[in-house]
Amino acid sequence: MELKDLLGGKGANLAEMTSVLGLPVPPGFTITTEACRQAMDGGWPEGLDDEVARHVKRLEKAMKRTLGDADDPLLVSVRSGGKFSMPGMMDTVLNLGLNDASVDGLAARTDERFAYDSYRRFIAMYGRIVLDVDGAVFDDPLEKLKARLGAASDADVPPSELRKLCRSYAAAIEKHTGETFPQDPLTQLRGAISAVFRSWNGARAVAYRVRERIPHELGTAVNVQAMVFGNRDDNSGTGVGFTRDPATGNKGEYGDFLLNAQGEDVVAGIRKTEPLSALARYFPEVHAELLAIFERLENHYRDMCDTEFTVEQGVLWMLQTRVGKRTGAAALRMAVDMTEDFGLSKEEALLRITADDLDQVLHPQIETRSDDVLVTGLPASPGAAVGRVYLSAEAAAEAVDRGEHVILVRTETSPEDVAGMQVSEGVLTARGGLVSHAAVVARGWGIPAVVGAEGLAIGPSSFTVGGVTVEEGETISLDGTSGEVVLGEAALSSSKPPPEFDTVLEWADAIRAGKLAVRANADNGADAANARRFGAEGVGLCRTEHMFLGEHRLPIVRRMILARSDKEEDAALEELRVAQKEDFAEILAAMDGLPVTVRLLDPPLHEFLPDTDELMVKQATKGLTKREQALYDAARAWQEQNPMLGTRGVRLGVLKPGLYAMQVRALMEAAFERAAAGGRPVVEIMIPLVVTREEMAEARGWVEAAIADAEAAVAGGAAKGRRQRIEVAIGTMIETPRAALRADEIAEEAEFFSFGTNDLTQMTFGFSRDDVETRMMPRYLERGLLERNPFETIDRTGVGELVKLGAERGRKTRADLELGVCGEHGGDPDSIELFWDVGLDYVSCSPFRVPIARLAAAQAIVGSPSAHDTR
Amino acid sequence: MELKDLLGGKGANLAEMTSVLGLPVPPGFTITTEACRQAMDGGWPEGLDDEVARHVKRLEKAMKRTLGDADDPLLVSVRSGGKFSMPGMMDTVLNLGLNDASVDGLAARTDERFAYDSYRRFIAMYGRIVLDVDGAVFDDPLEKLKARLGAASDADVPPSELRKLCRSYAAAIEKHTGETFPQDPLTQLRGAISAVFRSWNGARAVAYRVRERIPHELGTAVNVQAMVFGNRDDNSGTGVGFTRDPATGNKGEYGDFLLNAQGEDVVAGIRKTEPLSALARYFPEVHAELLAIFERLENHYRDMCDTEFTVEQGVLWMLQTRVGKRTGAAALRMAVDMTEDFGLSKEEALLRITADDLDQVLHPQIETRSDDVLVTGLPASPGAAVGRVYLSAEAAAEAVDRGEHVILVRTETSPEDVAGMQVSEGVLTARGGLVSHAAVVARGWGIPAVVGAEGLAIGPSSFTVGGVTVEEGETISLDGTSGEVVLGEAALSSSKPPPEFDTVLEWADAIRAGKLAVRANADNGADAANARRFGAEGVGLCRTEHMFLGEHRLPIVRRMILARSDKEEDAALEELRVAQKEDFAEILAAMDGLPVTVRLLDPPLHEFLPDTDELMVKQATKGLTKREQALYDAARAWQEQNPMLGTRGVRLGVLKPGLYAMQVRALMEAAFERAAAGGRPVVEIMIPLVVTREEMAEARGWVEAAIADAEAAVAGGAAKGRRQRIEVAIGTMIETPRAALRADEIAEEAEFFSFGTNDLTQMTFGFSRDDVETRMMPRYLERGLLERNPFETIDRTGVGELVKLGAERGRKTRADLELGVCGEHGGDPDSIELFWDVGLDYVSCSPFRVPIARLAAAQAIVGSPSAHDTR
Repeated sequence: MELKDLLGGKGANLAEMTSVLGLPVPPGFTITTEACRQAMDGGWPEGLDDEVARHVKRLEKAMKRTLGDADDPLLVSVRSGGKFSMPGMMDTVLNLGLNDASVDGLAARTDERFAYDSYRRFIAMYGRIVLDVDGAVFDDPLEKLKARLGAASDADVPPSELRKLCRSYAAAIEKHTGETFPQDPLTQLRGAISAVFRSWNGARAVAYRVRERIPHELGTAVNVQAMVFGNRDDNSGTGVGFTRDPATGNKGEYGDFLLNAQGEDVVAGIRKTEPLSALARYFPEVHAELLAIFERLENHYRDMCDTEFTVEQGVLWMLQTRVGKRTGAAALRMAVDMTEDFGLSKEEALLRITADDLDQVLHPQIETRSDDVLVTGLPASPGAAVGRVYLSAEAAAEAVDRGEHVILVRTETSPEDVAGMQVSEGVLTARGGLVSHAAVVARGWGIPAVVGAEGLAIGPSSFTVGGVTVEEGETISLDGTSGEVVLGEAALSSSKPPPEFDTVLEWADAIRAGKLAVRANADNGADAANARRFGAEGVGLCRTEHMFLGEHRLPIVRRMILARSDKEEDAALEELRVAQKEDFAEILAAMDGLPVTVRLLDPPLHEFLPDTDELMVKQATKGLTKREQALYDAARAWQEQNPMLGTRGVRLGVLKPGLYAMQVRALMEAAFERAAAGGRPVVEIMIPLVVTREEMAEARGWVEAAIADAEAAVAGGAAKGRRQRIEVAIGTMIETPRAALRADEIAEEAEFFSFGTNDLTQMTFGFSRDDVETRMMPRYLERGLLERNPFETIDRTGVGELVKLGAERGRKTRADLELGVCGEHGGDPDSIELFWDVGLDYVSCSPFRVPIARLAAAQAIVGSPSAHDTR
Repeated sequence: MELKDLLGGKGANLAEMTSVLGLPVPPGFTITTEACRQAMDGGWPEGLDDEVARHVKRLEKAMKRTLGDADDPLLVSVRSGGKFSMPGMMDTVLNLGLNDASVDGLAARTDERFAYDSYRRFIAMYGRIVLDVDGAVFDDPLEKLKARLGAASDADVPPSELRKLCRSYAAAIEKHTGETFPQDPLTQLRGAISAVFRSWNGARAVAYRVRERIPHELGTAVNVQAMVFGNRDDNSGTGVGFTRDPATGNKGEYGDFLLNAQGEDVVAGIRKTEPLSALARYFPEVHAELLAIFERLENHYRDMCDTEFTVEQGVLWMLQTRVGKRTGAAALRMAVDMTEDFGLSKEEALLRITADDLDQVLHPQIETRSDDVLVTGLPASPGAAVGRVYLSAEAAAEAVDRGEHVILVRTETSPEDVAGMQVSEGVLTARGGLVSHAAVVARGWGIPAVVGAEGLAIGPSSFTVGGVTVEEGETISLDGTSGEVVLGEAALSSSKPPPEFDTVLEWADAIRAGKLAVRANADNGADAANARRFGAEGVGLCRTEHMFLGEHRLPIVRRMILARSDKEEDAALEELRVAQKEDFAEILAAMDGLPVTVRLLDPPLHEFLPDTDELMVKQATKGLTKREQALYDAARAWQEQNPMLGTRGVRLGVLKPGLYAMQVRALMEAAFERAAAGGRPVVEIMIPLVVTREEMAEARGWVEAAIADAEAAVAGGAAKGRRQRIEVAIGTMIETPRAALRADEIAEEAEFFSFGTNDLTQMTFGFSRDDVETRMMPRYLERGLLERNPFETIDRTGVGELVKLGAERGRKTRADLELGVCGEHGGDPDSIELFWDVGLDYVSCSPFRVPIARLAAAQAIVGSPSAHDTR
């Protein structure tokens, strides 16, 4: 166990500041996270009161003052501090130790206004945080008082009024809680500690931990420290200081300062702060001392630090230091700078950068305060978008034709909306999860999207959410990284990566080379080209169904499904073949010389048919045309109870073998023609949803026959006399638990495996992503029933074990089996760590995640360099 | 490899008859299954022609005749013979070796009519089987000829006409195939062998193997034997003889005989046969010889044998012997008799009886020829039913009130049909698989059902299938064991088990005792009592949702779902509690002293809501009432894309914790009251669909709290002063791959596991049973992509491995973890074998399967007695 586990980040740093760095820190003590965990499980820990009393005695001795002393009282602050920083999420009580007697001692030693101002702050804070009294009970009388007195600021309220206010606060507490405000400082302290423990499970804190993936069971430590007073007089003040600029990474100090104020005033933003440099004007010596401390801190932590400090009557006190949070751009800048500043190795520098840092510099984001947010949905496709609301694909397309920027807002999308989506800046849906049609299509095209925005009700010409109605044509902004939607045109952050971006990724690539490759999921030439620009080393997943959904393709696909004879079906397949061949030619061109893994058709056929609900209603009301009736009948016939577990993937291939043959022929004709023209196509043909060796053998047979046909067609046609043989690999997705378990058998027929961890997760858990991610998952994460959303980060011990088994068993049959992953986990850093550990050859993710995957792959290798030596 | 693998059953027996038993068998040779497999894979095996020629030479030498000899020709029969008998499924060619020359040689040696009758038979058989010419091409001219001549039987056709017929047959072959009928006997032989190989993959043979679970890759052997002629003259004949009566098991010979006939005449049923005893009249010595052979055969095989024999001019020839097929009643009778007759041990006797044998004697079946069958659907719930067709639950209920026997016919059923199903003799649906609503409800109540009858179109007052229209009120019969539906009132076989039934099951129970228990799935008191009568040792699965579906319960359940406040929800839950308590009291009474495993609510809530389609159409046409609108909105809100993987089981518990608390309280109040009244309730509470330890811990918390509440309620109420503590076990289903993989963690919170192998199979394969079982599964079984339907017999290497892992890992955490299975595999003999191998404590199945499971459990133990010693 690290010191941080027990004392929390703040407590550990305070200990280090005092004992190692010799900084001026107000004395205090820390109550461990262990005590918090005990308190959460079984109530107040036995012996904790005694221990606190012992610590208080020692503190009183050091400070030569006593808690609650009527003459010269010791005051303390009580602050939370978990292992991981959770800024602003938990509670703090300041000025503890004041009571009706000690306030007068403080007044006598300092001045009356300061003493009673501190007391009223303490009573209010204690009432609100420890006793759970509504804050307005304290704020309203103060505001009324200031209005009556015409006081501009708190400091203008005379001591006599503050004294009365303290009495009325105490009375209010008695009225609201039925108990008197405690006068005994140890009772106050126990209350404050207990309140800090409690705040660990407050709604805000829980939500923060879910978002930041901090385990709920850690608990918080509590730091009790002697108070120093930045609000003592005009020779005092308080501030927040960074050792470098956390927004840009620029060197030199950065921060805010407030004269004659307590820390909470800086944070609350009540008074306008001055830049940290103002300190030099007020207290030149303190400023110099602070800069020296900054240097000591940076050299010690070899990183940028964030500090809180107070000046009390000209004396500097450091209240807190920690390695500071920073923007993505700053993180990149600092990591590169610090290789020179502190001799960080490239490996160390890489580990300083997170996926979020890269995401920030890759996508613009909307700059928003949470108050502006109209609704928060699921972040389905990253990036920010601003545009006018349109509620149908047709209206959106027309508006784009008029030159407008458009956000398409739909309850959910279907293949018919695809044309409208394609021209929109962003997409917002009321229903559906992160693998809904809208989400998948938007990610494929890099269009920002927010899906499953609960509470969004869409009418004919407007939508309503949380009481706000937005008319068609009004402007909204959305952020597909955070899931936030705001009314109006939001400011966007820049999306131009700084120069350090390339430096860092070059370092990462050098570490990865020959160990863990990164490919992209791309379904067309433009995506493939884009992915290559982002550094992709091939296409790990080309989903051929997206080629079926285009405006001009869908009617052909439907003709194939509706065909009443083999002849009609063959004619439709032939049309599709010609169309698909073009797509493949573009992708192979964009990825020339690099492998392109093409997955044969995967989704159930009903996805290409219209929604049955609409047609059912139309049938019952206006009646259907003959063509509509045919489509309706087909849609009903192909409808399934659980399409996720239904007739899709290779199962569809078994029912309609002509389909796969057509696709392979289109692909291979494109490849042969490219090779004939001097290109270097590298083709991998992937069979989806295989569960038995026999299926794989059968599919392999179709593929090989179709390759031979394509070869013959090309040899006999334009490319006559330049007959080409291209090496093609035939492999399969491993996306069902059975395929992972029986990987040894399946590998007899497959030259590569690509783990489809989305479906594998759905089946291993029995979680239909579309259904559980909006309704159930949030509850599960809040209650700690799942540590993480297994669709974001792979479930290491469940799904991860299947991936590991699949890899081991596959390689047992075929030592040179190529192994990759093409689920969305392929772009998630923690998942990439597992994929490296189990010995995969590559990960594949959406083009925009490629840089993140390159970094994460290098980080995984740095973290566990010899994982593959055991192969 | 056994002899049977290579030579097939017939070939191996022929070898044994000749060499070991010294029976009079016409000489011949066998072409191995290996040659057939080669022929299927890569065409005619190299060297086979030479080998056949060599064998023919040897045969000719032994018989002192030559194939095709114009003077005294050798004729042979060519018959199939796989490892497992497939009666009537494959092809046979007789009289091979005849040609335009040798027929006259035969005529000279015998008589002309016989020779030309044999030749015309041979040409027709060869044309039909080897050359694929329609049989009518040969049958029609013969019929016309007989009509023209006024011939009563084939024997009345004069030789001259037969000679002409042979010429016209040969001409017809040339016309239909473009080739002449081969005169060379070796060419004829090669053609016949090749046709027999081919017939292995004929549609009938494939369908038979799918049904009988015979692997497609085995292939058939081919037996070439010298012909003997039962149709030689009136001193000849042919017959089929059993060593005991295969219908009843009675001792003494049994069979059919035909004078002056060939074997095909007996099988085809053209001529009326005489009983085997007639042989004594015609040929007393042959009869005595045959009886002596029967005795030798029985003593050798220690079983009842089935023989084919021919008498040629007073000489007996044995053409075939095999252990004979028998009815269920006969199987029981013979197994018990033979412990005395042949000193079979009880274990050996048990292994002679199959699940089908018991099923036959437990359920009546309809006696039908395949021509009568209206449609064959999925056999969803065993037993036969006869009744009048009604097309709605209301009409069915009214008809029953009038005293009619009713078969309810629906496209599919929903909770609203339950009342109508309950009073029907049988249920027939057009859609849905073996776990559809109709199937599950019918099995639960032991009502015969056929579901998913494809092609069944239901109109307002009639249904149509295969061109036949059946009006409401007409009588049909259905067989839920075979899936067959016939028009009118079918004859039913008896369902009273013979006395040997109990003897055999007592033997089985003695072997099982303390090793592998058998429980039943039962959802109400009547089922539980019934199960106990069948020998169940407890309830392994009580599905509480069935209690929610009753006519009077459903409205309460819906009130709970629609509740707009906690108060409304609580009120509905309270009503349900009272109702459920009664159900539990009845089940606990029926199973007093035996464990009752109660599964808390499992299905998604939308199953208790009306169908959205109907309401959607009504909304668009007539409009909805306020109540309908509320139900419609709720149904839409709870609708899921993949309900199988959605918000159900413990997930529902997390979203609505009051639900599980209510159920546990109802159960435990019933248990406490029973104990107070002197009963001995043994309760196991089971949480469905768990995927993590944390879920199980949370659910355990609710259950324990509700037990305490129930205890307090009973202690404070009627049972005051007789406060009872009952030991209750809390455990979980293992029905997701993740739960099996993480069984070690989950066992920390669970005292027992019950493997839910239905869902586990669905998720491991990614097979939605409702979707794949009608459309995909038949194709997969035909093509050998799956060896068996994994929902009928557990997939040993995939799903089975997860069960094994789950059992091992669970017991690692908790050595005394109780392990059972409650999926439908619990009643399948082959699956029970696996469950015994991996160390389960019990299997649970539907009440009617309990005797089968008792037998199968004993068979598994006999087969692998020490499986559990390695625990």
